[in-house]
Amino acid sequence: MTGNIYVIGMGPGFKSMMTQEAFAAMENADVIVGYTVYVDLVREHFPEKEFFTTPMRQEIERCKACYEFALDGKNVAFICSGDAGVYGMAAPVFELLPDYIDSGITSENIIVIPGITAALSGAAVLGAPINHDFCLISLSDLLTPWAVIEKRLKASIDGDFAIALYNPSSHKRHDYLQKACDIMLEAGAREDRACGFVENIGRDGQNYTVCTLGELRKKQVNMFTTVFIGNSNTRIIEGKLVTPRGYKYE
Amino acid sequence: MTGNIYVIGMGPGFKSMMTQEAFAAMENADVIVGYTVYVDLVREHFPEKEFFTTPMRQEIERCKACYEFALDGKNVAFICSGDAGVYGMAAPVFELLPDYIDSGITSENIIVIPGITAALSGAAVLGAPINHDFCLISLSDLLTPWAVIEKRLKASIDGDFAIALYNPSSHKRHDYLQKACDIMLEAGAREDRACGFVENIGRDGQNYTVCTLGELRKKQVNMFTTVFIGNSNTRIIEGKLVTPRGYKYE
Repeated sequence: MTGNIYVIGMGPGFKSMMTQEAFAAMENADVIVGYTVYVDLVREHFPEKEFFTTPMRQEIERCKACYEFALDGKNVAFICSGDAGVYGMAAPVFELLPDYIDSGITSENIIVIPGITAALSGAAVLGAPINHDFCLISLSDLLTPWAVIEKRLKASIDGDFAIALYNPSSHKRHDYLQKACDIMLEAGAREDRACGFVENIGRDGQNYTVCTLGELRKKQVNMFTTVFIGNSNTRIIEGKLVTPRGYKYE
Repeated sequence: MTGNIYVIGMGPGFKSMMTQEAFAAMENADVIVGYTVYVDLVREHFPEKEFFTTPMRQEIERCKACYEFALDGKNVAFICSGDAGVYGMAAPVFELLPDYIDSGITSENIIVIPGITAALSGAAVLGAPINHDFCLISLSDLLTPWAVIEKRLKASIDGDFAIALYNPSSHKRHDYLQKACDIMLEAGAREDRACGFVENIGRDGQNYTVCTLGELRKKQVNMFTTVFIGNSNTRIIEGKLVTPRGYKYE
């Protein structure tokens, strides 16, 4: 009898921001698998549980370990920060599935449990920056060619979307946010477009900043930051970043 | 002493898909405000609570009622389906704030609590269709000119984004999904692009379909449907819709 693999979005960090089904799936699992940093965020709630962690950049090893546990008959809670299906582990788990079909695991053994991704939790902190059509773009070029990222940044301005940017910075990519802002400005975004960013969303040290695109270009943000660029109608209201839905007010 | 307005994303429907902070904010509120249909989904959990509902299209009246309750010193749980800040009530609440500043309500009295929007919950049902950069577009032209929607559909194909479409149909807009597919095909999307849709996400009657863009164009979906269009790399794996993150597998 094979076990199930629950690919779980745990939200930004605080237990209060997990869904009840996410927490229950961890509680009911035989083993909790994940990146060391995220597993440490939930370990205190399940001190008796079996854990399996791998360091950063060993995502595929982590996925394969889930299949091995499931083949041993264990139910697996595979945890991801934010949402399981937004730059998360849901896709790689399904991509590996054909290798395990002959062992008896089917797509029905893989259950994705959604969670609050940083676009939503960060937006809540800033006000309502993505309250209309929006794009989500990661600035990490580890797995995506920079030319593709550049094309998407340009298209997001052409379409006048509100935008959430993930992975705006890292040790090796300290100037990527500046490059992204330049691409958006060249694509026609105005320097006074309303923007903002949030650090440490849903964790200790959470803080936010509201600014213009011209100001954002000069900011140095860290890797625990989610950045928001408004659409051309986004306004700063009483210090909050707000993208109107389009209602008319008397 | 004014009360606080908690603008709450309740997720798709089932209590298990609410976050713990969303549920707690409803539990601690003096009054729960919302669109009749959504309030009915939570009423059973809080039989003793004061409720205030307004029908569809009375969103601004609903927002103003929240301010009036807060001015009476009540803590208000203003519930939205999905997320509070994705086509939700967070933006209109902030847009009305300047009218109430003189009464003593500040931006600190407005707390947005995120929830699982249909892009995330629907993606989890289908597999992993938005596991890379994606756009979210509503096809409703009640509050947005169709020309803007058309521009965004085209830009989303130009940028090769995965796409989630909200409000793909209604009584008066039965052919909008077909029109949207035609715009995407004209913008260069291939007929065999992998797509899918989910009906009644997180509610009784949930079901999903995986198909190509050419097939999607001929589908008649209802208003309780969320539609997903893959990017050019999205594949159907064992009946699930999967947008690769970009990992290499041995």
